[in-house]
Amino acid sequence: MEATLSGDVVRAGDQARERFYDSSGYGHPVDAGALELAPVEAAHLLYRGDLDAVESSDGEAMDFRAFLASAAVSETAFLVYKDLRDRGFYLSPARAGWTDSSAARSAIDDPAVDFVVYPRGSGPWDDEVAYRVAVVSEREGVPSADLGDLVLAVVDEESELTYLETEHREISGTSDADLPEGVSGELLSDRVLLWDPPEALYERAFYGQPLDDQRGDVIQLSLLEAAYLAREGLLEVDGRTDPIVARGRDVEGERFDRRLRVYESLRDRGVVPKTGYKFGADFRTYADVESVEDLGHSELLVRVFPAGHTFSPRDLALDVRLAHGVRKTMVFALVGDDGEAGGGDVEWLSVTRLTP
Amino acid sequence: MEATLSGDVVRAGDQARERFYDSSGYGHPVDAGALELAPVEAAHLLYRGDLDAVESSDGEAMDFRAFLASAAVSETAFLVYKDLRDRGFYLSPARAGWTDSSAARSAIDDPAVDFVVYPRGSGPWDDEVAYRVAVVSEREGVPSADLGDLVLAVVDEESELTYLETEHREISGTSDADLPEGVSGELLSDRVLLWDPPEALYERAFYGQPLDDQRGDVIQLSLLEAAYLAREGLLEVDGRTDPIVARGRDVEGERFDRRLRVYESLRDRGVVPKTGYKFGADFRTYADVESVEDLGHSELLVRVFPAGHTFSPRDLALDVRLAHGVRKTMVFALVGDDGEAGGGDVEWLSVTRLTP
Repeated sequence: MEATLSGDVVRAGDQARERFYDSSGYGHPVDAGALELAPVEAAHLLYRGDLDAVESSDGEAMDFRAFLASAAVSETAFLVYKDLRDRGFYLSPARAGWTDSSAARSAIDDPAVDFVVYPRGSGPWDDEVAYRVAVVSEREGVPSADLGDLVLAVVDEESELTYLETEHREISGTSDADLPEGVSGELLSDRVLLWDPPEALYERAFYGQPLDDQRGDVIQLSLLEAAYLAREGLLEVDGRTDPIVARGRDVEGERFDRRLRVYESLRDRGVVPKTGYKFGADFRTYADVESVEDLGHSELLVRVFPAGHTFSPRDLALDVRLAHGVRKTMVFALVGDDGEAGGGDVEWLSVTRLTP
Repeated sequence: MEATLSGDVVRAGDQARERFYDSSGYGHPVDAGALELAPVEAAHLLYRGDLDAVESSDGEAMDFRAFLASAAVSETAFLVYKDLRDRGFYLSPARAGWTDSSAARSAIDDPAVDFVVYPRGSGPWDDEVAYRVAVVSEREGVPSADLGDLVLAVVDEESELTYLETEHREISGTSDADLPEGVSGELLSDRVLLWDPPEALYERAFYGQPLDDQRGDVIQLSLLEAAYLAREGLLEVDGRTDPIVARGRDVEGERFDRRLRVYESLRDRGVVPKTGYKFGADFRTYADVESVEDLGHSELLVRVFPAGHTFSPRDLALDVRLAHGVRKTMVFALVGDDGEAGGGDVEWLSVTRLTP
């Protein structure tokens, strides 16, 4: 069968539609019997031996090896295409006209998406989409704006694949203890000590950490906890409320404001954030705290970034792998421009491992 | 009992030696019956109620709260000192004269060390050291030069403690397959394809990754693997050996040279490095590869940094926690100034969680 590369399309001749599209979902039919294939699709047909060669515009016949080495096809895209085919999926490049599916339309309009993957047993003639997939090399940065309703297919330097599912999500919980006003604290270098705290503060609302687990009489607050309680009008430090944020900025710079914004947002949604230090994250969170005695498992690990952050696939792999290992979900909190506490939207993005 | 702060020493009066030093290893005796205490030791005695107050040089009597809030004592040091006492250890500040132990001398001379911790049941009058401990806040950077034979006691923002043991270590293995010369490869954008590889390359020496697990006829090498094989004179790419390193620098900058230096060093020591991408590291390593069919478990995760790197405790926590969760040891490879392959020493530093 003849197949000719022209621009970014491979045109295949007689019977191509029947052999490749109707039976296996490759390409898109242009008229009776003829078929247009994306180069990655043609590469896969070459690899399988279903095509012998693709002819270049200057008449050179390219076998699989020559075609893969040519500029027409990206080998990372090929590796992902092949892997998804091996897993039993039909998929189309996210190009206008390449699929009839209205469900795929948003993927076609989204420049981040490379492939539209149909549910097993479905194809481009159906109206269902299982995954919108972006192919990235381990070394490429991934802008946060691209993420959400997107599966990253990361090709690592040794050509192994990992799939990461990214989703926008809402955060909510039911933690909402009543607290007395008028607590006073003492600011040490980067924590606040409460020498005579109301019991509910730690026991019910899970603020702070006792200086001594047995005695429980003195509570240490982090600067974030103290800054939040001060903003809520529940805590005074050295008779005032403002020195805490200033101290936080001294020790962390503007990162403190972003983290405080996320801390506030979580508390305001009924979720208790505690430090995620042991997991290398900003926070671990508890959605339904009624008492410290009965905490249960923390559900999320939260890492805070400024909006517009560019993710490194390797850092993503590390965070997501760790979260999975401790049965938590990794969530990135992206804080808008006006990151100062009280302003700035927070966007929540979960990233999880996917086995398609 | 009277106790007076003078400079960075608290002098305690009659019977202090007997009560605090002889029975519990606090301070160091200066003459019969008198004792000098470091402020952190005095803070702990105040906390326990063994001292009622410490008098400042201007005659103010400070209780535990006032003393902890004063500039005399760091609350992070106090938290670590208290925790180690709670765990049943005697410990001394790493100050000249504070301990008789010759084993502690190197710790006293090392400005990174804050506390010398004796084995349980031992004290400053014995000649054994269990741990050399540095107290760091989560927010402080830790210079790599400080690490090795040092326990980091990290105080996180919520005042919880984590101990990380850091050690210099040697790396060695027995992987050493004979390989044929004269392999030729083709450089694609950031990998090298071997269309007709000798079987031993993958099967015995674990270079590369088959394009297809079933067929196994085409092998993909990472740029690092290809650059190493080319340097060893075993591989030619496009008839030459030098384009691979140039490509590596194009896609990774000087980081490529550092990683190649570590890759070479590991291979030269009989250890097989493979990508650590799925663990967010540079490499995972196999010490004793005889064949790919019988690989076993990879032992180390390796992350590459330039010598002089400053570690963030949070990043350390993430790496060490992940490595522990997958039953591997986290090793940092610090590459000296002349990081280019062939030159530059590599220093290996393992970091593991410790429960004292």
